[in-house]
Amino acid sequence: MPDNKAVVYQGPGKVSVEETPYPEFEVKDGPGVNPANVGRKVQHGVIVKTIATNICGSDQHMVRGRTTAPVGLTLGHEITGEVVETGRDVEFIKVGDLVSVPFNIACGRCRNCKEGKTDVCENVNPDRAGSAYGYVDMGGWVGGQAKYVLVPYADWNLLKFPDRDQAMEKILDLAMLSDIFPTGFHGCVSAKVGPGSTVYIAGAGPVGLAAACSAFLLGAAVVIVGDLNKERLAQARSFGCETVDVSAGDPKDQIEQILGVPEVDCAVDAVGFEARGHGREAQQERPATVLNTLMDVARAGGALGIPGLYVTGDPGAADEAARHGSLSIRIGLGWSKSHSFVTGQCPVMRYHRRLMMAILHDRVQIAKAVNATPIPLEDAPRGYAEFDHGAARKYVLDPHGMLAAA
Amino acid sequence: MPDNKAVVYQGPGKVSVEETPYPEFEVKDGPGVNPANVGRKVQHGVIVKTIATNICGSDQHMVRGRTTAPVGLTLGHEITGEVVETGRDVEFIKVGDLVSVPFNIACGRCRNCKEGKTDVCENVNPDRAGSAYGYVDMGGWVGGQAKYVLVPYADWNLLKFPDRDQAMEKILDLAMLSDIFPTGFHGCVSAKVGPGSTVYIAGAGPVGLAAACSAFLLGAAVVIVGDLNKERLAQARSFGCETVDVSAGDPKDQIEQILGVPEVDCAVDAVGFEARGHGREAQQERPATVLNTLMDVARAGGALGIPGLYVTGDPGAADEAARHGSLSIRIGLGWSKSHSFVTGQCPVMRYHRRLMMAILHDRVQIAKAVNATPIPLEDAPRGYAEFDHGAARKYVLDPHGMLAAA
Amino acid sequence: MPDNKAVVYQGPGKVSVEETPYPEFEVKDGPGVNPANVGRKVQHGVIVKTIATNICGSDQHMVRGRTTAPVGLTLGHEITGEVVETGRDVEFIKVGDLVSVPFNIACGRCRNCKEGKTDVCENVNPDRAGSAYGYVDMGGWVGGQAKYVLVPYADWNLLKFPDRDQAMEKILDLAMLSDIFPTGFHGCVSAKVGPGSTVYIAGAGPVGLAAACSAFLLGAAVVIVGDLNKERLAQARSFGCETVDVSAGDPKDQIEQILGVPEVDCAVDAVGFEARGHGREAQQERPATVLNTLMDVARAGGALGIPGLYVTGDPGAADEAARHGSLSIRIGLGWSKSHSFVTGQCPVMRYHRRLMMAILHDRVQIAKAVNATPIPLEDAPRGYAEFDHGAARKYVLDPHGMLAAA
Amino acid sequence: MPDNKAVVYQGPGKVSVEETPYPEFEVKDGPGVNPANVGRKVQHGVIVKTIATNICGSDQHMVRGRTTAPVGLTLGHEITGEVVETGRDVEFIKVGDLVSVPFNIACGRCRNCKEGKTDVCENVNPDRAGSAYGYVDMGGWVGGQAKYVLVPYADWNLLKFPDRDQAMEKILDLAMLSDIFPTGFHGCVSAKVGPGSTVYIAGAGPVGLAAACSAFLLGAAVVIVGDLNKERLAQARSFGCETVDVSAGDPKDQIEQILGVPEVDCAVDAVGFEARGHGREAQQERPATVLNTLMDVARAGGALGIPGLYVTGDPGAADEAARHGSLSIRIGLGWSKSHSFVTGQCPVMRYHRRLMMAILHDRVQIAKAVNATPIPLEDAPRGYAEFDHGAARKYVLDPHGMLAAA
Repeated sequence: MPDNKAVVYQGPGKVSVEETPYPEFEVKDGPGVNPANVGRKVQHGVIVKTIATNICGSDQHMVRGRTTAPVGLTLGHEITGEVVETGRDVEFIKVGDLVSVPFNIACGRCRNCKEGKTDVCENVNPDRAGSAYGYVDMGGWVGGQAKYVLVPYADWNLLKFPDRDQAMEKILDLAMLSDIFPTGFHGCVSAKVGPGSTVYIAGAGPVGLAAACSAFLLGAAVVIVGDLNKERLAQARSFGCETVDVSAGDPKDQIEQILGVPEVDCAVDAVGFEARGHGREAQQERPATVLNTLMDVARAGGALGIPGLYVTGDPGAADEAARHGSLSIRIGLGWSKSHSFVTGQCPVMRYHRRLMMAILHDRVQIAKAVNATPIPLEDAPRGYAEFDHGAARKYVLDPHGMLAAA
Repeated sequence: MPDNKAVVYQGPGKVSVEETPYPEFEVKDGPGVNPANVGRKVQHGVIVKTIATNICGSDQHMVRGRTTAPVGLTLGHEITGEVVETGRDVEFIKVGDLVSVPFNIACGRCRNCKEGKTDVCENVNPDRAGSAYGYVDMGGWVGGQAKYVLVPYADWNLLKFPDRDQAMEKILDLAMLSDIFPTGFHGCVSAKVGPGSTVYIAGAGPVGLAAACSAFLLGAAVVIVGDLNKERLAQARSFGCETVDVSAGDPKDQIEQILGVPEVDCAVDAVGFEARGHGREAQQERPATVLNTLMDVARAGGALGIPGLYVTGDPGAADEAARHGSLSIRIGLGWSKSHSFVTGQCPVMRYHRRLMMAILHDRVQIAKAVNATPIPLEDAPRGYAEFDHGAARKYVLDPHGMLAAA
Repeated sequence: MPDNKAVVYQGPGKVSVEETPYPEFEVKDGPGVNPANVGRKVQHGVIVKTIATNICGSDQHMVRGRTTAPVGLTLGHEITGEVVETGRDVEFIKVGDLVSVPFNIACGRCRNCKEGKTDVCENVNPDRAGSAYGYVDMGGWVGGQAKYVLVPYADWNLLKFPDRDQAMEKILDLAMLSDIFPTGFHGCVSAKVGPGSTVYIAGAGPVGLAAACSAFLLGAAVVIVGDLNKERLAQARSFGCETVDVSAGDPKDQIEQILGVPEVDCAVDAVGFEARGHGREAQQERPATVLNTLMDVARAGGALGIPGLYVTGDPGAADEAARHGSLSIRIGLGWSKSHSFVTGQCPVMRYHRRLMMAILHDRVQIAKAVNATPIPLEDAPRGYAEFDHGAARKYVLDPHGMLAAA
Repeated sequence: MPDNKAVVYQGPGKVSVEETPYPEFEVKDGPGVNPANVGRKVQHGVIVKTIATNICGSDQHMVRGRTTAPVGLTLGHEITGEVVETGRDVEFIKVGDLVSVPFNIACGRCRNCKEGKTDVCENVNPDRAGSAYGYVDMGGWVGGQAKYVLVPYADWNLLKFPDRDQAMEKILDLAMLSDIFPTGFHGCVSAKVGPGSTVYIAGAGPVGLAAACSAFLLGAAVVIVGDLNKERLAQARSFGCETVDVSAGDPKDQIEQILGVPEVDCAVDAVGFEARGHGREAQQERPATVLNTLMDVARAGGALGIPGLYVTGDPGAADEAARHGSLSIRIGLGWSKSHSFVTGQCPVMRYHRRLMMAILHDRVQIAKAVNATPIPLEDAPRGYAEFDHGAARKYVLDPHGMLAAA
């Protein structure tokens, strides 16, 4: 049985790389594992040797101490790899397959899965609908920033790449299929982006850049990305986006300078609850800023996609209401413009196959757009720190040196 | 030229019936008329002799003094009648046609109209997208709680009833097509109600009851209506709804007693910003109560339709944020359940023809469901007062005695 | 191990009830079993004790000798029953559950299943996409007009009824969920039936009646059913349909008499390739009659749902082209009216849960609409014969006497 | 009043450029004008000075004598130009506006227009739903291969370019908005093309190339175009398409060589009824070849978009059935694969604004893709002839020399 190693949460601001048990086809007890899940048999699962496993902005929420994540939690939900072992009940996925693992764990048997809503699967998280690897309050499925990871319901969840060599040539792009590419794409689809749309995307982090890249793939005419991090804005411009520096004033005015009108067809929130204010408030946390701005800049009849994370409880919030997840939202503004809002995790399975096809046939350069940067697994703490400081990079851990070799 | 008479707003809590000018094919100056609209030619319009014109809950917002509506404003946007004169440019609508007038005024020429979004027409209200008759900040189109009213863009806006006699037999039902039936229906469509759905509708006023009636027409399995007005709840039960008394405790618990599970597939807000709290807070205004309750009771993956009105400014609000239309919303709860939200006015034209067909072919009894109650135009002040006190009735003004005769 | 008995095809015009093997969790060789499926392990399956199993019009195609079905084929794909044994890999379905079995067998793991297209599952039929129990060229899954039947991929395929007693009270209605109710409903959804629609349904057999019943559930204003069998037309009228006797002349004229206009919004083909002509040609087989009529009577911009079966080869066809499945279709007519056409098997899983809810909450009386008629399993030959002679009944076999007892 | 000149049909194989009357705001009698339309007032119309007006493949059907078009018919329905005069009732369109004219004439007042189905407007063609300029059996609206043309219902129909100079820079691209770009796009949308799709487009004429270009704009992974004209196939390859030479054998085999599988997700018919056979039958007309091929190559669960024209009568057809528009279609094949089919004219208004945005913001090079080639109005006969001989060009007439100057 091979050794295993993984990135482990060690308390606010701290992660380390530790030896961890090699996965078995059963959920074991451990930090953050829901007792109701302990002992659950996973013969429908496979063990994946991780080729690429990315650091995500939502990991940062935990590492910054903005959640109740327990010390000792193995992190990581963006997993791409090779199947090295299959459970007894696995029928179609085979050892040797190269696969993308959707970050949402789904059973493929419940009502929501049957309706394509794998983001709110009812059977994998005893606490509530929806789950993910290595995440607080998500049932306790061990994280995948590791050399090996267990993937349940493998025939349902996994996306198999059609050809191994072809896949390894584009492995950094394909590594974005587990979360941020579909998540950004879902934000755009939710905002009804299509050919000819004008789009405003709040946030130039990896999800925002993936949304921008998706908007172009969907045929958008103009894609405007807003952030206060100048390096990230430059990254957005590198593939054709227009940009708005929200620290320099009202996004609406800057949008008018770009488009000639102070409004867009579609708006995407790729920031979530850890938003900061605009203009002079750019150093303060203003958790509803992005939502309120999107209602301000989206045209009447427009749509808002909200893949950015909002939480039911935020121990680190600035005020009591926010600590319970209540934000002061200018809902009357959206109502007067007949806005629609789509929130929640991206149901990755709804999109990953077609996005894979777009990658394999050179229709999109997602790794370049988000500046995917492979680093050794051991350098994960550095990756977390640099990402937290606003590096315009998507860090991709390389546990077996296969990215470096590719 | 016949005499005209109309219901006029006289300040908080007060309306009266006054002599008013007979309409011409031009927008005239007057209380609440946008200066940019004054003098606008309306040769595309027709003059409608009002057969039925209803008092709406949104009229009450103005009459209660919760808006900046000026004294002297002619009220009324729910209009059904007979065309008695046509402007020079009208081609298809003819004198003698019996018609339903959508409460949203739309030009039929702008981008939003072409996309079916007549609720946010860009050409009729100089202030912003969207308009209505007799309403504050809606451009100044004269209200239709009157004997005669001007309807612009008649070929586009009007729904002609196919047969005059057939229409007069069901005129009270057809009178609901101008607003509340489509509005309730839109709430249900937005909440993705379909065959077999379980539905929670907040509010048993006329829009709530119309939503409930719509839910049945759409095939819903169980329709649950919540309110704190016992008479209105009894009205809901009269056509097969289950009910929840929100003054008696948490709607979620009562829903569980009805369904066996504490959640519904679809949720509709037929209350809006003048909501009161639940349980012990039932006497206090709690403007975000309904939205927060809907997120609580809608299942993960569910949808919320929000036809209930939310405003950008509320001079009568209890706190500063609410005065600017900002409410404390538990958005993290909705996000964790991947909820979608559809807000805004109903685009009546999208639905009125098919709902008319359902009425004419006896598939729905909307007038009975909302307890439509004709009263003479002169009794409008009484109608407003009784409705404000919570009567389980939809008051329908009868300016020419044609309802009484029918 | 209990005894098993089943309805077996014995050649054109002949079926018998025979002793058959009790199911095991493996596909065994036998008449019509695809060699590539022989020996396939089915530990994801369950054994269902059949409570109700219906005779279907598509069974008749085989029994009439219009297919290449081999003698010895066990028939039956409309199955409702109780789970009496579960395979090793079944996780959520339990012994004792009362369930509806979709007639399409689906794996729940392939691309089509993930997209909700269980009618064209790629993993269960080695010949082509799509499968069913007891049907020629469908992979060789043993039919369910039997006391016991094997259901593969049970966690995915089965719809569990929430409560056993409640289910047994409506078991004849629930028995329609395995095929004809969803199939008729799919026809209507494909034809875009909604509140207020006018609908023409060609065919008053069980699928046509189920489509008519579905149209009402979807809110249709007027439902017109056409056939040449007077008893079946009377059955259609029994629940509110208008009817057209296609042997009496052109459906278009009769539709105009009913509606005042010679066209409908939506049209459903519930007949398929074994259609007869209209008017004087009513005794001849005219395989494209229904399609051509639907294009004639559907309005410009309308939609056609085509659940009626068309085949790729028809050994009994009247001409060479039809023997290869080519029909003379007036496509230019449909094109000039911008018609859309949706063909194929119904993906039952897309609808059965919500239709079950409508049944359980008394929103629809499907068994009454199709005149569901339970008969003992032993009487299957009589049921086939009477149905073939045009009885206005849906025959439901009762292998364990549980329907008679209910 | 300026002189007018136009392209006039002179009998099979013959067109000429003639002096014609300058348009007035009324429908005048003339060749092909429906008597019921003669004298119709058009004060809602504008007169457009034609900047670009294209020769269309559907014009060729008439010029080849495959329709009942009368000698003397002024041709042309692909019109782009400048408004030089407005009718009394025109409110939003102004003299000087540069506009694209959708080839379908629509009233903007009927049920179909309100539903966005401008391809089947009910008020402009007394014969049936749907109309176009300069086309047989379309009501008699004078064609626009002319210096000046009357456009009715101008506020509804016209797409105004936002900026005159910007428009003139891309005028050849914008000239494709009146028909073929939206038509090709509609074919792709109907075939459900989206990011990552594999697409087969039958026909490399201008509509086929526009469909291919649209498929890329919609994010398709692989676009395969089939034709037997080698020059047109080369044109398709010039912007990234794969190609299939249908004269060289079965498209399915060639698709397999390209994709590794013998099927595509989406299929578009950009040929219509004047199709030829494949392989050895490539010189014979085989009107159902394309439809049957598309069913053969589209995957189970796939969709077919059919913008290619099929007619209700074809005097030049090879057999009696085809003369009445009936073709021998292998419908059983499509049914067994659950195909959906969308037929009919493209509702241009649904798409032209967003495609204009894509052009103006350099997201698509449609003129280059279809090899748009301006020629003087006087050279129209040559354009028709060369196009008929299979030139891989889209001929754009330039009545005022403005394209040459741009």
